[in-house]
Amino acid sequence: MSDGDGASAPALMQEIGARARRAAHELAQSTPAARTRALHAMADQLDSAQEAIAAANAEDVSAAQMRGLAAPLIDRLRLDPPRIAAMAQGLRTIAAQDDSIGAELARWTRPNGLDIARIAVPIGVIGIIFESRPNVTADAAGLCVRSGNAVILRCGSEALRSALAIAAPVQAALAARGLPADAVQIVPTTDRAAVGAMLKGLDGAIDLLIPRGGKSLVARVQDEARVPVLGHLEGLCHTYVHADADPDMAVEVTYNAKMRRTGVCGATETLLIDKSCAPALLPRIAARLLAGGCALRGDAAACALVPQATPASAADWSREYLDAILAVRVVDGLDAAIDHIARYGSQHTDAILTENADAAAQFLARVDSAIVLHNASTQFADGGEFGFGAEIGIATGKLHARGPVGAAQLTTYKYVVRGQGQRRP
Amino acid sequence: MSDGDGASAPALMQEIGARARRAAHELAQSTPAARTRALHAMADQLDSAQEAIAAANAEDVSAAQMRGLAAPLIDRLRLDPPRIAAMAQGLRTIAAQDDSIGAELARWTRPNGLDIARIAVPIGVIGIIFESRPNVTADAAGLCVRSGNAVILRCGSEALRSALAIAAPVQAALAARGLPADAVQIVPTTDRAAVGAMLKGLDGAIDLLIPRGGKSLVARVQDEARVPVLGHLEGLCHTYVHADADPDMAVEVTYNAKMRRTGVCGATETLLIDKSCAPALLPRIAARLLAGGCALRGDAAACALVPQATPASAADWSREYLDAILAVRVVDGLDAAIDHIARYGSQHTDAILTENADAAAQFLARVDSAIVLHNASTQFADGGEFGFGAEIGIATGKLHARGPVGAAQLTTYKYVVRGQGQRRP
Repeated sequence: MSDGDGASAPALMQEIGARARRAAHELAQSTPAARTRALHAMADQLDSAQEAIAAANAEDVSAAQMRGLAAPLIDRLRLDPPRIAAMAQGLRTIAAQDDSIGAELARWTRPNGLDIARIAVPIGVIGIIFESRPNVTADAAGLCVRSGNAVILRCGSEALRSALAIAAPVQAALAARGLPADAVQIVPTTDRAAVGAMLKGLDGAIDLLIPRGGKSLVARVQDEARVPVLGHLEGLCHTYVHADADPDMAVEVTYNAKMRRTGVCGATETLLIDKSCAPALLPRIAARLLAGGCALRGDAAACALVPQATPASAADWSREYLDAILAVRVVDGLDAAIDHIARYGSQHTDAILTENADAAAQFLARVDSAIVLHNASTQFADGGEFGFGAEIGIATGKLHARGPVGAAQLTTYKYVVRGQGQRRP
Repeated sequence: MSDGDGASAPALMQEIGARARRAAHELAQSTPAARTRALHAMADQLDSAQEAIAAANAEDVSAAQMRGLAAPLIDRLRLDPPRIAAMAQGLRTIAAQDDSIGAELARWTRPNGLDIARIAVPIGVIGIIFESRPNVTADAAGLCVRSGNAVILRCGSEALRSALAIAAPVQAALAARGLPADAVQIVPTTDRAAVGAMLKGLDGAIDLLIPRGGKSLVARVQDEARVPVLGHLEGLCHTYVHADADPDMAVEVTYNAKMRRTGVCGATETLLIDKSCAPALLPRIAARLLAGGCALRGDAAACALVPQATPASAADWSREYLDAILAVRVVDGLDAAIDHIARYGSQHTDAILTENADAAAQFLARVDSAIVLHNASTQFADGGEFGFGAEIGIATGKLHARGPVGAAQLTTYKYVVRGQGQRRP
């Protein structure tokens, strides 16, 4: 494994693209039952390959330790037996899902007799560029096979041995079930030119790019890609405690929204609270958060009510902490809260806590985010929690798909028109 | 009107973007009935402004003639009374359409009691960059108002007076019906920096760009845009005459597919015909086309059957003629036809003519184009013919929308989640 095989990368990538395109054509014509059988076989073969995967992963981990990678990165890289078992289980969950490919989404007949049907079809070839977590390989393979798409996976160099060890049983399972092994390919080089080639779409072979990783990776892909991108840029999520919030619910849901896991994109980063209820309620919410180890950064009104809070700067309203830190702002009612979210939010996930049905309805209608919640934790922003079985990410753009991206979101449609010789006047 | 006011363009464009964003928020909260009323008012005011529009257009046309613009361009620029009346009528057609905004696309309850609904919402602010045809202003305004989106229109400099004259009554009608006049804005400068600013998305103000014009404009927008693009790149459409085609239907449908209008994107550019039926049928099809003034460029087998055909070069299979020229290739059955379309087609619109149900089913399933037809003319590739009332173009990409883009395709969705205090375990 080296960074020095640049001369061969363009030819290698072109070959990978051509193989993926052929596999996509074949996969698009397979039956839902064949894809379900292949997903079960993939899960079984993954289970059988547990030792080989663990050995490859141990090599990746020790190489990463030698290179001095930070502990959280090494944690993401590590595949222990429960994580490997979880990958196989994820594939079985995906196998149990409905498959919308070929479904008739709409159908109508025109006055001239033309019969027009809109039919769900796979997108084609999906390129995924990801960092650190080698288990993305199995999730992405499962969602793409379910939705009839071929996938080309490019992982960070630190995870390449692990990704290849996961892909091997997956490809064997596809071949054993009569589907093209090239439906799931790992870019087998750490040459950075491979990423550049994928961003250009491999001469038309890639239909969609999905970056999975930190903000800088996603921003680079969105900036440089010459093919469509479905990306998760940032989760700057808000929980808004309305004047008519149930106090106990506000304490517990806010705590969960921030502290269940602070590193996930659905974690609340800013708490907005109405000035009418803040004097009584904010100290209680703050006490729970502080007891759990959360630091608070408040505006002047919040700091006056919570002595332990430090003053927030303007930049705090735009910070995705991904840590046990919460920005807190006292607002003057619903309109002010909605304005704050419109100005600083990332259109990802935002929640209102209130017993007032009209305020809830206004918030749900007027906040323009992929997910808006009433009386629930923002940490429910997750494909699994939505019932999608798995997700390849949460899309923060507005086109094609918003929110959790599961197999159903990896489809598009075509129009099938049936006539009897119609000519257009 | 000059090209010299570059210094002010960035500030002007930022202001336009901010106005559009405010208008989009307001429009997204309007009722379907309010938008319907506004669309009727827009049509009425357009009718009333017929003289002003004609006068502005006459100025554009005479300036274009002075600059020596080609006759077809001047024809596209010209707005005669029937064309102005057609714009108003188009708005009334759009007004009569259903409005999907706010519709519940799906709804389910999770085991934990969370109630999840997927709701149709507007995209937000749509930027349209177009050439020549000033009537795009009215069509785009109508489709965007119908779908609750604000629109920023940038037209070619040759059409700016006309576009402004069309937008004035449209904006007056919006304001008169209580909707934001800024929902429809024309970029009032010919400064080319304005296009660059739109390609960058006006600091996040533009959610989607739609280019309407020639291939070079669309390619530039797709290449340089930093926001999602819904574009129509090319219509390299095929009509495939299968061995079991009805001969009379093949003659008439092929003629219509090529010759009804040669300059539209749904015009057939390549005829594929099975070698088993070509000896009897191709001369008949060719005779009809030649009599209508169509030139034929054939492969060796086609030229042997049609003496008037000239030899096609390899480049002819990739040429979007948009003219009375047809490439003709004799193929060895269904697989060869599908392979040809996969290699040279533009995934726009392709048709099979056959009485063989199995061959038709295979073609419809395996050809990966936005529109596939059986026994009908490719010239039906049109939003009006699909029953969409109007279209803003035909999308040739695979994400978000394929085929005709009407008001329904200018929407996205959000998830509205209702709970009772759920925290995520």
